[in-house]
Amino acid sequence: MVVKSQIKFIKNLQQKKYRTQNKLFVVEGVKTVRELLDSSLKVYRIYVTDSKVLPRDANFVELISEGELKKMSGLSTPNKVLGVFHIPEPEPLDFSDWVIALDDVRDPGNMGTIIRLCDWFGVKSIICSSNSVDCYNPKVLQATMGSVSRVNIVYGDLHGIIGNCGVPVYGAFMDGAVVYKEEFSKKGILVMGNEANGVSEVMEALIGKKISIPQFGPKTAESLNVATATAILLNEIRRG
Amino acid sequence: MVVKSQIKFIKNLQQKKYRTQNKLFVVEGVKTVRELLDSSLKVYRIYVTDSKVLPRDANFVELISEGELKKMSGLSTPNKVLGVFHIPEPEPLDFSDWVIALDDVRDPGNMGTIIRLCDWFGVKSIICSSNSVDCYNPKVLQATMGSVSRVNIVYGDLHGIIGNCGVPVYGAFMDGAVVYKEEFSKKGILVMGNEANGVSEVMEALIGKKISIPQFGPKTAESLNVATATAILLNEIRRG
Repeated sequence: MVVKSQIKFIKNLQQKKYRTQNKLFVVEGVKTVRELLDSSLKVYRIYVTDSKVLPRDANFVELISEGELKKMSGLSTPNKVLGVFHIPEPEPLDFSDWVIALDDVRDPGNMGTIIRLCDWFGVKSIICSSNSVDCYNPKVLQATMGSVSRVNIVYGDLHGIIGNCGVPVYGAFMDGAVVYKEEFSKKGILVMGNEANGVSEVMEALIGKKISIPQFGPKTAESLNVATATAILLNEIRRG
Repeated sequence: MVVKSQIKFIKNLQQKKYRTQNKLFVVEGVKTVRELLDSSLKVYRIYVTDSKVLPRDANFVELISEGELKKMSGLSTPNKVLGVFHIPEPEPLDFSDWVIALDDVRDPGNMGTIIRLCDWFGVKSIICSSNSVDCYNPKVLQATMGSVSRVNIVYGDLHGIIGNCGVPVYGAFMDGAVVYKEEFSKKGILVMGNEANGVSEVMEALIGKKISIPQFGPKTAESLNVATATAILLNEIRRG
């Protein structure tokens, strides 16, 4: 049985304020919890309603009732396992390879997809402006599928960090140069903008090269979603 | 004032059964409703809570109360406008250009993103297996941003249609040939599989060429999401 205060403590981790304060985050579902247990992340506690799902003998695993899980969970139909992990300290940024910079990306699904893309394309670091959605938000974690443990994600003053990094800075714009003609160097930063407003003016001033993905359909088509644009641009950078 | 039976009729259109029966679908939000009014789609009725948002003099626009909108809407916080449009008859498939085939894509966000991608890359037709998510599902429409009016979407027997189309059939697989080396012809079909299971065995038998997107990160990375994989492959096909 879990004491009431502990249930409240875990439930509060759905909110960024409490995650930051306690340096802990929550993931749900057998697959993702298992993947994070196999990663470099440090586990705080795992709650299971079914002892067959995870070995109960590990000292961090606790068997709880379905009612207790429901009270802790952020899901409307919780799924057997809830894991709590320590938020890792971000590592120093490594500008010897490509880095993605997110200028106020707000949608959790987009953030999660971009983290997963970086994992696939071997991009080890993401810099996020302070107003970007928190990468330990439960909806972000749902879209990352465990990739969050393999990508170094740093929040901070995007302008200050990029202004002083000394590598080529690219940005995605509707009116940029056609990306297919670009010869990318071995390292660089790719700035991706906010869903509604694109790259901010203050960041635009730092961008050395504006690039764009050509449109082949009718000119009435909406811009590409920021996650799909990132997919295409990362593929262009890596394919050489 | 809207009669109770009409409110129930509109609310029911959140469900596929009633959409199919009445050949009508619902979209919400000023931007998308305006875009669909400017498209080739036929309007059935538009409900507004604010007459400044849309001209009230058009005979299909009806001013309603916020309480009435809330009862009709599929959103927890409805947003001033709800539009009802006729589901168009699908056009005959045109195999003279590229066509995307979706083999049981179930996630509304993925379906919506793929429709929007086809619009961007000028792919005019999508064939969906009968078990794919309905493209007039409100969550799909939210992700398409109006593109649904510019892409011909046909549901049916994927195997039967593709088996007899006479153009090259490509499919996305984890173990396919590296897509960068592929010289794509002017026309073809690209089959994208289900989120969890990939392309089905029965469809796999029809595929002439399996292609894949190389992985540059650690081999522990999850596969790419079906919508981001479609983004990258459509870009590869169009970039030439």
